[in-house]
Amino acid sequence: MQQPIFVRKLLPALICALGTVASVAEAAPTISRLTPPSNTLSADAVTLARFLPGQRFDLQATVKPDAGTMITTVEFKVDGVSVGVISGSGVAGNKSLVPASSLTSSVPNAVSAYLRGYANSAPGVHTLAVTATQSDGQVVSREGNFEVVGIVANNGRTAKNVIIMLGDGMGAAHRTAARIMAKGYAQGKAQGRLAMDTFPYTGMVMTASLDSIVTDSAPGMANYVTGNKAQNNQEGVYPDDTTDAFDNPRVEYLSEYLHRKKGTTLGIVTTADVFDATPAANAVHTSNRGNGTGIVDQFLDDRKLTGLTVLMGGGRKWFLPNASNSTSPQAINGSQRKTSTDYVLPDDLVAGWGAAKGKLDSNRDLIADFQAAGYAYAPDKTALDAAGVPDKLLGLFTFSNMNVALDKINARRGVSTVVNDYGFPDQPMLDEMTDKALKVLNKNNANGFVLMVEGASIDKQAHLMDSDRWILETIEFDRAIQKARDFATANPDTIVIVTADHECAGASIIGAYTGSGAAKNNVATYEAAKFPKYTINADGYPENTDVAGKMLIGYGANADRYETWKTFPQPAQDSQQPFYKDAPLNTYPANAAARTGDGFLISGQVSGEQAVHTATDIPLSAYGRGASLFTGVFDNTDVFFKLGQIAIGGAK
Amino acid sequence: MQQPIFVRKLLPALICALGTVASVAEAAPTISRLTPPSNTLSADAVTLARFLPGQRFDLQATVKPDAGTMITTVEFKVDGVSVGVISGSGVAGNKSLVPASSLTSSVPNAVSAYLRGYANSAPGVHTLAVTATQSDGQVVSREGNFEVVGIVANNGRTAKNVIIMLGDGMGAAHRTAARIMAKGYAQGKAQGRLAMDTFPYTGMVMTASLDSIVTDSAPGMANYVTGNKAQNNQEGVYPDDTTDAFDNPRVEYLSEYLHRKKGTTLGIVTTADVFDATPAANAVHTSNRGNGTGIVDQFLDDRKLTGLTVLMGGGRKWFLPNASNSTSPQAINGSQRKTSTDYVLPDDLVAGWGAAKGKLDSNRDLIADFQAAGYAYAPDKTALDAAGVPDKLLGLFTFSNMNVALDKINARRGVSTVVNDYGFPDQPMLDEMTDKALKVLNKNNANGFVLMVEGASIDKQAHLMDSDRWILETIEFDRAIQKARDFATANPDTIVIVTADHECAGASIIGAYTGSGAAKNNVATYEAAKFPKYTINADGYPENTDVAGKMLIGYGANADRYETWKTFPQPAQDSQQPFYKDAPLNTYPANAAARTGDGFLISGQVSGEQAVHTATDIPLSAYGRGASLFTGVFDNTDVFFKLGQIAIGGAK
Repeated sequence: MQQPIFVRKLLPALICALGTVASVAEAAPTISRLTPPSNTLSADAVTLARFLPGQRFDLQATVKPDAGTMITTVEFKVDGVSVGVISGSGVAGNKSLVPASSLTSSVPNAVSAYLRGYANSAPGVHTLAVTATQSDGQVVSREGNFEVVGIVANNGRTAKNVIIMLGDGMGAAHRTAARIMAKGYAQGKAQGRLAMDTFPYTGMVMTASLDSIVTDSAPGMANYVTGNKAQNNQEGVYPDDTTDAFDNPRVEYLSEYLHRKKGTTLGIVTTADVFDATPAANAVHTSNRGNGTGIVDQFLDDRKLTGLTVLMGGGRKWFLPNASNSTSPQAINGSQRKTSTDYVLPDDLVAGWGAAKGKLDSNRDLIADFQAAGYAYAPDKTALDAAGVPDKLLGLFTFSNMNVALDKINARRGVSTVVNDYGFPDQPMLDEMTDKALKVLNKNNANGFVLMVEGASIDKQAHLMDSDRWILETIEFDRAIQKARDFATANPDTIVIVTADHECAGASIIGAYTGSGAAKNNVATYEAAKFPKYTINADGYPENTDVAGKMLIGYGANADRYETWKTFPQPAQDSQQPFYKDAPLNTYPANAAARTGDGFLISGQVSGEQAVHTATDIPLSAYGRGASLFTGVFDNTDVFFKLGQIAIGGAK
Repeated sequence: MQQPIFVRKLLPALICALGTVASVAEAAPTISRLTPPSNTLSADAVTLARFLPGQRFDLQATVKPDAGTMITTVEFKVDGVSVGVISGSGVAGNKSLVPASSLTSSVPNAVSAYLRGYANSAPGVHTLAVTATQSDGQVVSREGNFEVVGIVANNGRTAKNVIIMLGDGMGAAHRTAARIMAKGYAQGKAQGRLAMDTFPYTGMVMTASLDSIVTDSAPGMANYVTGNKAQNNQEGVYPDDTTDAFDNPRVEYLSEYLHRKKGTTLGIVTTADVFDATPAANAVHTSNRGNGTGIVDQFLDDRKLTGLTVLMGGGRKWFLPNASNSTSPQAINGSQRKTSTDYVLPDDLVAGWGAAKGKLDSNRDLIADFQAAGYAYAPDKTALDAAGVPDKLLGLFTFSNMNVALDKINARRGVSTVVNDYGFPDQPMLDEMTDKALKVLNKNNANGFVLMVEGASIDKQAHLMDSDRWILETIEFDRAIQKARDFATANPDTIVIVTADHECAGASIIGAYTGSGAAKNNVATYEAAKFPKYTINADGYPENTDVAGKMLIGYGANADRYETWKTFPQPAQDSQQPFYKDAPLNTYPANAAARTGDGFLISGQVSGEQAVHTATDIPLSAYGRGASLFTGVFDNTDVFFKLGQIAIGGAK
C-alpha cells in the first residue's frame, strides 16, 4: 500500500466532491464515485445510506486511471473483509467491469466496477472500502459507509398488509381544499371530515431527493419504498456513470424485500399511465423514468421479484405492439413502444438479482403476455366489473393518463363529452379500482400484500393550475382512501399510510370569488371569503364547481397563466403536459385559446408553462397496525424503515 | 305560552338564519341572535359551542319587537331551567338589557339581553333557550345548545405548566425553509433538525374563524385558548349587536380558567407590539383588535383574572401618557393612547366576571402603574439582563413592533444601522426573552403557569414577501422553542406545543437562485436547485443570506411585487404595514423606491399591497406531558380541550 500516493490522489477527489475547487484536472487516478453514496463523499456527517437487514443493493465504483494506464482490479471490502474482486473486463457472475466506451465520462480507460445484489444483515454502521489497482501498480482507495437499521423482533403484532396511498403533489393545501369543497364549513368548523382526516396519526415528511431540495415524482415515491435517496428522474437505483438507463446500481424495493422475506404480493393502482414515475417506482429499476417500453416490460418480466398481482391505470400505448419499431410519430393512440426506450440487462445484474434479461422488442404484444401469465385483462369499467375476483389482474383503461375525476363524473352525469372525445367513455373511478385491487390481493392472502394506490392527477392538474380539477382529484383520492381504511378496519393486520411524494405548485387557498370578472379584485380575502358552499351529489362530488363565492386557489410556484377563476370546460393543457396528446379527436386548440384569450394575466414566479414542485414538507396520515410510528417530523426514507419494522418485527 | 304565535315568529327567524330567504321583512318580533352560537342558527348540525366544565361565558340574545311595542322581559333557560330573567332597562347584578340606542341595528326598541359569567359543570350537550315577552303579551322563543366537554379525572399525570409557542403565519413551508437555511441539506437529507422538528408528536390544525375559512390572528390565537370560534378581528368574545367594542359576550380564556381553578400565572412574550392580536388574545376581551389603549390597560387591570406575571414585547407607545388626549398625529414615538381606543365596562360585565371597570384615561402612565403593581420594568436588553429574576416583569423594548431578527443580528455584528435608525439599538432576541420569562414564571411556581411566546414577524414579513427576513424570524422563533423544550425536559410536568394561528402568504420553496438578474428565468427549479448552502455563524444565524444558489420563495397569496431575489438591505415596508411608522428617523422612502424601481414585476393573485393569509391547515408539534394527544387532524378549538385535559385531568 503506497500511502503517500493514496493521500495525494484522494485529496483532490475530496476537494472536487466538496465543490470548493472546480478546476482540478482529472489527470490523476481517482475514484470519482462510490455507491451507495455516503458521508465520506461530502463534508456532511449526517448522510448515510441505510438498509433493512438483508436488503439487497449493488456496490459500484467509478475509477479514472492515469493517462496511459489501465485499471486492472477493483476490490470492495465491508468492515475490512473482501466481498468481491473485479478484474479484467467483462462479466463474471454478479460482477462486472464496465469499460470507458459505455461510460458518460470521456476519461480514457475509465471503468465502472459493479458488484450486484450485495446484502448485509448485521445492524449497525459498516465501512465500505473500494481499492483499485492500476496497471503501473499504483493503488487508490476510498472509503464510505452504510448502516443496517435493525428490526426489533416481537415488538408487537406485525402488519401482514401494507397499503400506501400516494397523493401525487398533495400538500397541506390540497387536503384542506378538498375538505372545504367536499364537506363544507360553518361557523368556523368543518361539517365533516375527509377519510384521511380520520386517520389517528399524522407526521410531516421531508421530501428532498438525492440531488435537490425539490424532488420529482420518481425519487419522491422510490425514497419511501427503498429507504434510500434516489436522484431526480431515477427510481429504484443509484446514479452511475454509464449511458445505459437500466443498468444502474439497484436498491431493493419494499415490494421485493417483503416478497422475498414473506412472500407478499404487489398491487399497483394509478390514475396515470402505469409507466409513470410513481407506479414504476415500486417495482422497476431505471435511471430514466421516461423509458416506458422497458418499464412496462419489467413490471411483467420481474414479477417473480415483486410478486406483482394487480396493475391498473392508463398507459395501454406501451402494451401494444409496434411491429416495425417505427420511430416516426405513431398513429394517434397507436403503440408507443420503441427499442430506444426498452432494455437488455447486463449479465451481472441478471445473475445478482435473478432478474429477467429483457429484450429490445418493440413488436411485443404485452397484453397478450400478461394474459398468458395468468392476468385477467380489463380494458374498461364494464370489463373490470365483469372480471369478478381473478387471481391476477391487469387493467388499462386509456392509452395514456386516465381522464380526471371532474370529467369522468361529468360523463357519468351525462353532461360532458370530454371522456367520449378522449375515446374512453367507460373508465372506473379510483375508489372502484382500489376496491377491486383489494379484493384480488386479498383472495390468496396467506402472506399479505403491498398495495400502492396513486392519485396521480392531483399533481398533473396542479401543474396546470387547473384548480377545480385537482380539488376533485383529491376528493376522488380520498374516496379511495376510504376503501383502504374500510379494508384495514376489517383486516386489522394492515397498515395504511396516506402521503405524497412532494407538494406541487405552491397551492394556496386565498379566499373566495366575488363579482363577475377575472381581475384579482374579484378575490375576496379574510372574512369576505366566508364559507364557500358546494352542493355534493349522491355520487360524492360537487354538483357544480362554479358556485357563488367559490373557493379560490393561488399558486406560489406558478408559471404565467390567464386566470378566469372559472372551471375550465375542458381540461387545461399545454405542450409540456401532453395529457391529451393521444386523444383520437385532438380538438382542443380552442381550449388553449380560452386559457390565453380570456382572463387576467398573472405573471409566474418560475419560467416555463407549468407550475413546479416545491420543497415544502408534506403531511402523512396513518391508520391501522403500527400507525403510531408515523408522527413527528421525519424523512421520506424513514418511512421505509417504519414499514419494515411493522411488517417484519411488529409494532404496538 | 301562545304556541301558534311562537311558531309564527320562529319560522321566519330560522329562515333568515338559513340564508335561503333574504327578503323577509324584520317587522315582526324576532330573536335575531342567540349567544353562544350553536347549530340551530344554521342548517349545519356539526357546529356546537363547547366549554370545559365550569368554564365561564356570557349568554346573550338580541330581540327585535313588533312596531309600537317593547320587550319587557327576556329569560334564559338551560335544559329547561331558568338561569336568569332580565327585565326593564338598565343593569341588575350580572344582567342587563341594552337599549336600541346602543345597538348597531336601527330597529326601534330592539334590545340585547346579557347574562354574564354563566358556567355549567355537567358534561354533555345542554339546550339553551331564550324567551322574550313583548309589551303586548306576545312571546317569542328560540333554542340553541352547547356542549360541556368532560375532563377525564386521574387519567395520568397532569401538566402544571403550559407553554404555547405561536409562530404567527407559520405554515409547513416556513418551517421547511428555516430548516433548509439553518441546518443545510446534503444528499437529500437535512443535516440537522430544528428544535421543533425534534418534538415527538405532530398534528395538522384546521384554522378557520367563526366567519371565514381564512382567519386573522385574533381568532387564530383565541380559538386555541377559549375552545370557541371567534370572529375575525375579535378576541375572547362572541360577536354581538352593540357598538361598544369591549362589552361583547365573553368566553373565558385558558389563562383565566386555569388561574381560577389552579392558581396558575400567565406570561406573554412577543416580538410584536404587545397590544397585537396574538398576545392580546390570551388575556383581553374585545371585538376590535385595534383598540390598543384599552387592550394594554386590561392586561394590567384584569391581572387578577389572568394571573399576568410577565409581559414582554414592543408597544411602549400605548403605555405613555397622552395628557391632552390629542387626536392629531402624535409626536414620532410619542404616546398613541386615546380615549377612542379605551373602554369603560358595563356594570353587569364587571359584576359577572369580577373585571375592572376601566376608565377613559389617555393620560394614564401605564408603565408607572405596572411598576406600582410590583412589575419590574425593562426598556432594553441591558435592563432585562440586569433585572435578575423579579417576581413580575414588564419589558417594552420598542415603541411599536420590535425589529426583526435579521436586523437585530446585523446590529449585534456591527454591520447594520437599521435598529439604530429605528431608535432601539439594544433589543433582546426572542430566545433571550423566552429564557427570562421562564425563569420569572418558574420562580414561584407552586401552581404552574401558562406561557404564550409569539414569533410575530414570521407573519409580518411574509405579508411583505420579504423572504429572508421571515426565514430568519422562523430561525429566531425556533431558538426560543429550544428554550421551551429545555425547560420541559428539566421540568417534565410541562406540555409545550408549537403551532401557528394560520398560514401566511402561501409561501412556497420554489428552488434556488442562479444567474444574476431578477427575471424568473434566474429561478432554478427541481434538480437545478440542488442544496442551498448557508454558513451559520456562532450566533446561530446565517453569515449572509445572499449566497450563490440561495433558496428562493414564491407566494401563492401574493400582491404585486418587484422581485430582485436579493435580501432587502432595509426591511420592506408599505403603507398598510406601518412597521416603521413610529421610527424617529423616518428615512426609508429610498427603500420603497428600491422595492419598486428595481427588480422584476410579479403580478399578484390578490389585491392590495400585501400577501394575505390562507386557509391551509398548519402543522402543530408537541413535546412533554400529554404530547401524544396532539396527532391526527383536528380543529384549533380542539387544542383547548386537549390542554384542559392535560392540565386538569392528566394524560399518559
